[in-house]
Amino acid sequence: MIRIGVIGYGYWGPNLVRNFAETPGLAVASVADIDQKKLDIVKKRYPGVATTTRFQELIEDRSIDAVAVATPVSTHFELGMAALKAGKHVWIEKPLAETALQARKLVEEAEKRERVLLVDHTFIYTGAVRRMAELVKGDDFGDMLYYDSTRINLGLFQRDVSVISDLAVHDFSILDYLLDEQPVAVSAVGTNHFRGTPENLSYLTLFYGSGIIAHVNVNWLAPVKMRQIFVGGSKKMIVYDDLESSEKIKVYDKGISLTDDPQRIYEMRVGYRSGDMWAPRLDATEALRVEGEHFADCIETGKTPLTDGFLGMRVVELIEAATRSMNDRGRSVEVNGKFMFQGRRVA
Amino acid sequence: MIRIGVIGYGYWGPNLVRNFAETPGLAVASVADIDQKKLDIVKKRYPGVATTTRFQELIEDRSIDAVAVATPVSTHFELGMAALKAGKHVWIEKPLAETALQARKLVEEAEKRERVLLVDHTFIYTGAVRRMAELVKGDDFGDMLYYDSTRINLGLFQRDVSVISDLAVHDFSILDYLLDEQPVAVSAVGTNHFRGTPENLSYLTLFYGSGIIAHVNVNWLAPVKMRQIFVGGSKKMIVYDDLESSEKIKVYDKGISLTDDPQRIYEMRVGYRSGDMWAPRLDATEALRVEGEHFADCIETGKTPLTDGFLGMRVVELIEAATRSMNDRGRSVEVNGKFMFQGRRVA
Amino acid sequence: MIRIGVIGYGYWGPNLVRNFAETPGLAVASVADIDQKKLDIVKKRYPGVATTTRFQELIEDRSIDAVAVATPVSTHFELGMAALKAGKHVWIEKPLAETALQARKLVEEAEKRERVLLVDHTFIYTGAVRRMAELVKGDDFGDMLYYDSTRINLGLFQRDVSVISDLAVHDFSILDYLLDEQPVAVSAVGTNHFRGTPENLSYLTLFYGSGIIAHVNVNWLAPVKMRQIFVGGSKKMIVYDDLESSEKIKVYDKGISLTDDPQRIYEMRVGYRSGDMWAPRLDATEALRVEGEHFADCIETGKTPLTDGFLGMRVVELIEAATRSMNDRGRSVEVNGKFMFQGRRVA
Amino acid sequence: MIRIGVIGYGYWGPNLVRNFAETPGLAVASVADIDQKKLDIVKKRYPGVATTTRFQELIEDRSIDAVAVATPVSTHFELGMAALKAGKHVWIEKPLAETALQARKLVEEAEKRERVLLVDHTFIYTGAVRRMAELVKGDDFGDMLYYDSTRINLGLFQRDVSVISDLAVHDFSILDYLLDEQPVAVSAVGTNHFRGTPENLSYLTLFYGSGIIAHVNVNWLAPVKMRQIFVGGSKKMIVYDDLESSEKIKVYDKGISLTDDPQRIYEMRVGYRSGDMWAPRLDATEALRVEGEHFADCIETGKTPLTDGFLGMRVVELIEAATRSMNDRGRSVEVNGKFMFQGRRVA
Repeated sequence: MIRIGVIGYGYWGPNLVRNFAETPGLAVASVADIDQKKLDIVKKRYPGVATTTRFQELIEDRSIDAVAVATPVSTHFELGMAALKAGKHVWIEKPLAETALQARKLVEEAEKRERVLLVDHTFIYTGAVRRMAELVKGDDFGDMLYYDSTRINLGLFQRDVSVISDLAVHDFSILDYLLDEQPVAVSAVGTNHFRGTPENLSYLTLFYGSGIIAHVNVNWLAPVKMRQIFVGGSKKMIVYDDLESSEKIKVYDKGISLTDDPQRIYEMRVGYRSGDMWAPRLDATEALRVEGEHFADCIETGKTPLTDGFLGMRVVELIEAATRSMNDRGRSVEVNGKFMFQGRRVA
Repeated sequence: MIRIGVIGYGYWGPNLVRNFAETPGLAVASVADIDQKKLDIVKKRYPGVATTTRFQELIEDRSIDAVAVATPVSTHFELGMAALKAGKHVWIEKPLAETALQARKLVEEAEKRERVLLVDHTFIYTGAVRRMAELVKGDDFGDMLYYDSTRINLGLFQRDVSVISDLAVHDFSILDYLLDEQPVAVSAVGTNHFRGTPENLSYLTLFYGSGIIAHVNVNWLAPVKMRQIFVGGSKKMIVYDDLESSEKIKVYDKGISLTDDPQRIYEMRVGYRSGDMWAPRLDATEALRVEGEHFADCIETGKTPLTDGFLGMRVVELIEAATRSMNDRGRSVEVNGKFMFQGRRVA
Repeated sequence: MIRIGVIGYGYWGPNLVRNFAETPGLAVASVADIDQKKLDIVKKRYPGVATTTRFQELIEDRSIDAVAVATPVSTHFELGMAALKAGKHVWIEKPLAETALQARKLVEEAEKRERVLLVDHTFIYTGAVRRMAELVKGDDFGDMLYYDSTRINLGLFQRDVSVISDLAVHDFSILDYLLDEQPVAVSAVGTNHFRGTPENLSYLTLFYGSGIIAHVNVNWLAPVKMRQIFVGGSKKMIVYDDLESSEKIKVYDKGISLTDDPQRIYEMRVGYRSGDMWAPRLDATEALRVEGEHFADCIETGKTPLTDGFLGMRVVELIEAATRSMNDRGRSVEVNGKFMFQGRRVA
Repeated sequence: MIRIGVIGYGYWGPNLVRNFAETPGLAVASVADIDQKKLDIVKKRYPGVATTTRFQELIEDRSIDAVAVATPVSTHFELGMAALKAGKHVWIEKPLAETALQARKLVEEAEKRERVLLVDHTFIYTGAVRRMAELVKGDDFGDMLYYDSTRINLGLFQRDVSVISDLAVHDFSILDYLLDEQPVAVSAVGTNHFRGTPENLSYLTLFYGSGIIAHVNVNWLAPVKMRQIFVGGSKKMIVYDDLESSEKIKVYDKGISLTDDPQRIYEMRVGYRSGDMWAPRLDATEALRVEGEHFADCIETGKTPLTDGFLGMRVVELIEAATRSMNDRGRSVEVNGKFMFQGRRVA
């Protein structure tokens, strides 16, 4: 049994505790939060779980094997590093850290101490994204041509991060998972509509060496909620709508093909193909449950997590590059790659 | 009765002829097309209409008062100029011309000869766009914050124009109609997935002096069709979905407001407001019918068309700026304004 | 070339003329309507077509081979019979006649004179219904269990027919086409909300000897339009939404299966099966075009139309039975079958 | 503090316990279930709550003030009666009992002992139904003309009740809440597709003295889920779609009006009115929370619950009448009213 401590019982912490509590192989040992009222809720719901307002106490507890960090981003580096140095396996909320440099240090510390470092990019563990990856990497899809994502809603404005760190990171991690290459450049524009707040709306484009173009539209100031990804392939096209109750993934047998038909050549060498649509059944297991079991499995067997520190670090580097581009009205910024290509991909 | 000749009976020409034929005050006198087969169709449908494969014949016909040009963009300048020089009023398909310089010359020729020059930006004549403009300019909407448009489908790849000239022009004209200012800069990225073809996918951002940001997502390679505009205001937000059969325009009483609540200040000075949604009834008259009557009215009374040559010229200038930015991976390009600010807005 | 005359240029007549005019093998010779204004429109659109306010003139014209009757139901019998007696092939709008007795006489007259009698149940010629029939009759669907249709909108209240004759007839014809059996009984309820008008809302249930149950919900007083059919089979289920622009037909690999799992037996011997969804590509040819060509083909080759007089007669008999049931608050009414089983089905 | 015991921890019991546990004024004292495994889950989640496999123990516990019965319908009468006789206030799942006679006895027992008897018709406590009732009873709606509900999905086939008791009861209770009259007759048809199981599909019509007609379509064998109610009024129409995430209630300013326009009179004395659509903001509080607080309030103040035993009894009587009609293929069955009109309505 792996004993886990959770730091932060705000928005996401309760989901972690609930899931860890029901995951075989994991036991929630302790919860830390600076707000005693939140700990009172923990006490009421889980009388057997220890609580503390001092995170150090949790980290110093020798009986605890792993620590989950669910606090504001600005504290990820300090808390994650302290936990790793105390020899804990670490689960950390996305994004991994405020800067790529911090992210790199966390990754190096985990490597050095041979501890598991999992970044909670939850989408990678959904049935929909896993199925989409199988489809995209399969033979029927052809080459990926573009990726186009819209994540908008009237969201909770956040104090310490922009809409990129809140929403676009989902696409950064999904793209990392779907593709065998990293973007070479990023162009982003964005704006904040309230003085002194981080950007609440951003449009980002990622360029890849293979010619793939990925676009991400994130907005905290939209009247309706959308969570929609289009993935265009040379043979098939996928629409993933996360708000559909069933049929989240639709595969269209539609596309364009070059033609030698003289009639069409007169116009252009392009022909249309229109076929069936197909919505595969998806595994409906809660993603956090899958991820919790995966974390436990990695700790026990030494496997590298699907969303390891390297992936987390690449995501932070993209946030930095996008932010630089946004500050320069969309000027294309090369992605450094200095850290990136040390990264190993997990099959 | 205004006698009108139509040059080009390809994709759009038949719609023009059908509408002009039923518009009071207009009579279709002649149709020109280089393809005799298309003229045979005209003959069958409208036995009273003259046809010719030589456009000059139509332009030289003294009994003809106005000419509509519905041919590929590359011919707009030549045909439009010839018609103006022959003293005709001119209706020309969007975009007005291939270059802003050509557009300027057409505008100047129309001014000099005191002829009506209407550019067929049809959307401006829809009940939905007219209602949206009333709402945006009304007191309840507050300041416009952003405009975000998606126009995607598996479209007809075109030989001589990119997806910007085909689809983004709709947004350029709608923005020109909604706002009292012109964009100061444009950032665009795009790609073509088939060697030797124009761009079939593009993401554009327009920046305005007032801080408004406008984004346009156009794609000819999408498996489903979308025609959706979000307009965010400081007091209300609008969603315009052109594919809805009724309720195309939805007005949301939702938004964000600054707050002095100390609880929220701890987080951020932002509060949420969520209210009713409202879908106004729209005038369902076919836009082309409204536009045809407006053209006849401008010819008879000397009024300036809602979509006059200046608007058409500003749109072409935006196409040029966007194309330059696209060739430089999204680098922000200032909109020249050299021609633009000669433009007069029609109230 | 088959020369066709059309009687009635009101709501549906213009569609018939437009389609017949473009159907190879058919030529529109003449249009009759009591309203001269409507004939003026015909003259303007089709200068080559003769017009008359006297239908007898059209029927007596020896150069005319076939007559289409697109007038109010109350005149179908008189006009159809006159045309048949004059030796014409007849196309008649649905429903075939006001009473089953009239319908029978029309069928008998057509049989006697060996003329083609086609009843315009247009839905049978849509790509969607034809595909649905292939699916339902195929091996993968299993046994049909139920059919459930909703056809509602804020419709044109009609003077001489109820909502059953206007809308439920579509389902009567589709069921006749999908199934190899006729209903044995009908239960219907309905109401009219305006004194002196025919019923504007009705709920009907058809019972079949095999146990299939079919339900139809028709309503002219609904705020939104719906055209949706569910067909439940023992192996697959189909949803046909005629208002979807593409993907009108969705096939669900879902269902129920009996089980021997002791856990489930404790509850009930029923297990659930949930699989993929699939939307086949459909033939998008306009139904009226398909139907026009089919009519010409039947005239030339002597084939029996897919929607022949027998089908039209069975539909009228169902209207009569449903109306009787509706007048008795849903009491189940046996379907007579006296005429019905003389009917031959066309494969 | 009202101490409550819950009998039954199957499908719905856990929701009750979770909500009661967080409702001010209520404390969950004990949970009874015949399955020890379910009680083990209770123990793990709520270490402070007593558990027992013997419901008598819970009922005999003098420290318990109120009992919630969340067991199969066949046991409602025995358990509810035992709890009332032990002087408890009783919360009972819908439907109240298997027969109207049993329901009457429960109501009489509660009256005699002056205990609160609440039947858990949860929908009445949703923001959507409460808002719909305000709208329907308000001045702008006019007279109600019809009510049309569809509740279909691939549901859990139940052992001891038909789809009417499972799903149509929601409409029976909503209609009771919306209207000031009871139905005078019911016509229902239905079928079971698996030998020996209760009906899994049913179509019901309720007739009211005022002329209102209410229709309910319930089906456990549908491939997609729908929860949709249309309410037609003489001035407005409402669509309530419970699966919409926001905008569950839409109010249409559409309808029909009698006219004196001679043009229209030629056709019929009916004119169309089409106006705006409006979706009011709804209270999003969880219905079970509202209902739990209401139960506590009724116990403390002696108020009659909104969903009292009389309402529960009227619903059971409708189930009985519908079942009789269904066994006779839709023959209209008068609703007895013997018990019904003892009922008092709560404003």
